[in-house]
Amino acid sequence: MGEKLLLHEDPRSGNCYKIKLTAALLSVPLDTRRYDIMKGETRTPEFLAGINAHGRIPVLQVGERMLPESNAACWYLAEGSALIPDEPFDRAQMLRWMFFEQYSHEPNIATLRFWCRFIGESNLSQPQKAQMMPKRIAGQEALATMDRHLQEREWFVGSAASLADIALYAYTHVANEGGFDLAPYPAIKSWLERVPSLPGFVEMA
Amino acid sequence: MGEKLLLHEDPRSGNCYKIKLTAALLSVPLDTRRYDIMKGETRTPEFLAGINAHGRIPVLQVGERMLPESNAACWYLAEGSALIPDEPFDRAQMLRWMFFEQYSHEPNIATLRFWCRFIGESNLSQPQKAQMMPKRIAGQEALATMDRHLQEREWFVGSAASLADIALYAYTHVANEGGFDLAPYPAIKSWLERVPSLPGFVEMA
Repeated sequence: MGEKLLLHEDPRSGNCYKIKLTAALLSVPLDTRRYDIMKGETRTPEFLAGINAHGRIPVLQVGERMLPESNAACWYLAEGSALIPDEPFDRAQMLRWMFFEQYSHEPNIATLRFWCRFIGESNLSQPQKAQMMPKRIAGQEALATMDRHLQEREWFVGSAASLADIALYAYTHVANEGGFDLAPYPAIKSWLERVPSLPGFVEMA
Repeated sequence: MGEKLLLHEDPRSGNCYKIKLTAALLSVPLDTRRYDIMKGETRTPEFLAGINAHGRIPVLQVGERMLPESNAACWYLAEGSALIPDEPFDRAQMLRWMFFEQYSHEPNIATLRFWCRFIGESNLSQPQKAQMMPKRIAGQEALATMDRHLQEREWFVGSAASLADIALYAYTHVANEGGFDLAPYPAIKSWLERVPSLPGFVEMA
């Protein structure tokens, strides 16, 4: 990977952490530039014109090219490494859990963490307040699905850690900050203890 | 691809259509089994135990193995074909738009279509009603992002159609059923006319 890698990030974001964890596990050098999403720093005209027209971080900059979406950035870093399974069905299963993460996990578990920890429940809008309970239930359903899957295996796909584990670890290991109790999910708890034993593992900021 | 392929689907779902469109463009034979999500047919004990513990369609069955998540199933069908770019950065960009689709597009545009066309606005719960306007705004923001991107190119990634186009076509071409007016997005409208010209293209049911 000859081109310089720069991660546009907010260190409080689990989506940014995924990319830093992937880079660390692969010993890939990665510079970072920080933005405060609470101050609207990813919605400035400069950011929208030069980094991501969709106004979101993380964005992985590869030379002069921009790659938004956390799981796509992880994929780019990990192509050809052991973090992506060789076997085609396993590779698709890995992507399955990464899409599950973005569709069924992140919008519930990460969003409730953001609202509870960074916005504050009393500062939420009425539409946000109305979503607290549906997101709580959908988040628990996602955790239950993960727990059932992990009851029979150590890692989400195949016999080794893959990007599926990294993507799901990012917000699961801080789910308590969104008010999620992991006690009913013992297989998740065991898996959460397994991830930090990976060589090169780094903590979230 | 030696193993028999069976798609567990509801033909009204754009997520299921993506997989059928991918298979058609690649001339891959695909059997289908229908479920009525409105009647809870993906929440039966048999479905949860045998097809998908998360209670959702589509699921692509490959021999005896189950692959949920529409975009993962498209990936599995298309590996090694021209629908996935060869160049690593382009391949990651394709995944970027597929994650964008599941995170920023589908939960807004497909959900409003489902609510407006199949549930009926008067039958929505209070939390759902409170989400109508936020989802309308977020859907328009996703469409604006797509339109800006397409102003400079014919396809989402590189110089040919890829899975990114298929994933985004599925619900964009029926966005009007969710009350989205595409008139402000002329580049999307041109792109929507381009997709059906692909050899092997099939309409949504």
